[in-house]
Amino acid sequence: MSLLVVGSLGIDTIETPFGRVEDVLGGSATYIATAASYFVTPIRLVGVVGGDFKKEYIDFLESRDIDLEGLQIMEGGKTFRWGGRYHYDLNTRDTLFTELNCFEHFNPIIPESYRKTTYVCLGNIDPDLQRRVLEQIAKPRLVIGDTMNFWIKGKNKELLATLKLMDVLVVNESEVRELTGEPNLIKAAKLIIRMGPKTVVVKKGEHGALMVTERTIFSAPAYPLENINDPTGAGDAFAGGFIGWIARTDDLSDDNIKRAVIYGSALASFCVERFSLDRLKELTYLEIQDRFRSFRELSKFDEEAAAVR
Amino acid sequence: MSLLVVGSLGIDTIETPFGRVEDVLGGSATYIATAASYFVTPIRLVGVVGGDFKKEYIDFLESRDIDLEGLQIMEGGKTFRWGGRYHYDLNTRDTLFTELNCFEHFNPIIPESYRKTTYVCLGNIDPDLQRRVLEQIAKPRLVIGDTMNFWIKGKNKELLATLKLMDVLVVNESEVRELTGEPNLIKAAKLIIRMGPKTVVVKKGEHGALMVTERTIFSAPAYPLENINDPTGAGDAFAGGFIGWIARTDDLSDDNIKRAVIYGSALASFCVERFSLDRLKELTYLEIQDRFRSFRELSKFDEEAAAVR
Repeated sequence: MSLLVVGSLGIDTIETPFGRVEDVLGGSATYIATAASYFVTPIRLVGVVGGDFKKEYIDFLESRDIDLEGLQIMEGGKTFRWGGRYHYDLNTRDTLFTELNCFEHFNPIIPESYRKTTYVCLGNIDPDLQRRVLEQIAKPRLVIGDTMNFWIKGKNKELLATLKLMDVLVVNESEVRELTGEPNLIKAAKLIIRMGPKTVVVKKGEHGALMVTERTIFSAPAYPLENINDPTGAGDAFAGGFIGWIARTDDLSDDNIKRAVIYGSALASFCVERFSLDRLKELTYLEIQDRFRSFRELSKFDEEAAAVR
Repeated sequence: MSLLVVGSLGIDTIETPFGRVEDVLGGSATYIATAASYFVTPIRLVGVVGGDFKKEYIDFLESRDIDLEGLQIMEGGKTFRWGGRYHYDLNTRDTLFTELNCFEHFNPIIPESYRKTTYVCLGNIDPDLQRRVLEQIAKPRLVIGDTMNFWIKGKNKELLATLKLMDVLVVNESEVRELTGEPNLIKAAKLIIRMGPKTVVVKKGEHGALMVTERTIFSAPAYPLENINDPTGAGDAFAGGFIGWIARTDDLSDDNIKRAVIYGSALASFCVERFSLDRLKELTYLEIQDRFRSFRELSKFDEEAAAVR
């Protein structure tokens, strides 16, 4: 099934306790599309970059069978740049700089050939732009979207309008609480369901993920990584693995959405093993399947002896 | 199999955003023994209380088939008292007061009839006292223990000596990190395994629990409670459910320890539903079994469709 990804493409500078990389490929759409490309291809991409976006980045995206017809290249402009430094525990980070550059006036134009797309994944961009994307798509089967504190605070009304159009919201734990003002995660997720998305997937980092619908709650473990080099893009890799699996199987049953949560978790766990997209670049489908099975081992228990009395 | 519980018995005053209770039954040994009593009886208890420890508390403990031969009653003294106030999100609390009273000079004397005990659960008390308990027991099959920041900081050397004698350490996430100075939870748990306990169970509150051994990692979800009234005693109820199940089944296989983690999680989830021991008092074994099955539903996914390509 066809899959459209809209979001940022960027050039990152990242410092973690385990190293520093400068001018590496980044951006929400980049991570989402790369992760999803292991499940379904071609992936339709809409975004904007400047003339400084290296040819090797384009070559890489094309090597993953990502369709770049919707990528706007502003030859005279500069690409979105972000710099961040992660703290000792990797759970918090400081933004060192954000240069929006040509991303500042990004207007997502959906090429004619993308207008009938079954699955749409909206990376974390201005909720007004997210809505503008959806206005150009003829009845997608499923819309999944991300957002962040910045929009929850700064564009709340616009975000609420966009939420009404989303089927699945994939957000961080802190964002769920901030969006609803409710500290209890389950209650908060159920409040979001009343705002529009029928499914809320809460990303909890080292604590895994939680899927909440009107009738189901599913708790996915985190893969027990001992060596995390760079958390950048983990949430986007999650979204990409999640929607990639759904687009591949075209099955919206609860059972299949649970599997999608595990595939999302698997891709996020690979993502953080190395800097930038380095690990996502070299994955194999077999490795992904192996990790899926590891997630099962991790959370499996039986009740064989439960009948003892 | 026989089970000995050693720890505090107290009188608590608790404030949460959902209510306030004064002079209610509390203490680590109380919660552990009550939770464990749903799995195995009689439970051998060692602790100390003052003359102000109400008869109704004694009657309640006896009603749960908890053997009080090891309970020291200091007629002229006062019982340990603790007051705490939980914040809005229930994840943090302020201690309003701590009156050690007769607990200050507690010397755990193990009655002759308890000296051959198969399973020993050491509540969170001074690591020197934990060691003194073990010196009086003839070769228990399994020793499980708890500790806290206070001892990690204040009695580190003593705690390390006690850890060598424990088979299972059940601790909070923050305590695992503090004990090892390692922010990565998996690495930290493995460092603790080198200190003595072959199994480390990390309690993560609303994020569930993690069991780590040399060869296995098991991730248990948290039960998705929308109404938590009082988190007091949840960790002790966890320990009680965990060791209760193991003592009942007398099976130390990895698979059975995983089940014990789920029973621990189940008892903790009941515990927080009401104040003090109010919910733990009125449980039935059937309710516990139902909740065990809910935990399975919560984390279960299949890979049926995983073979698609």
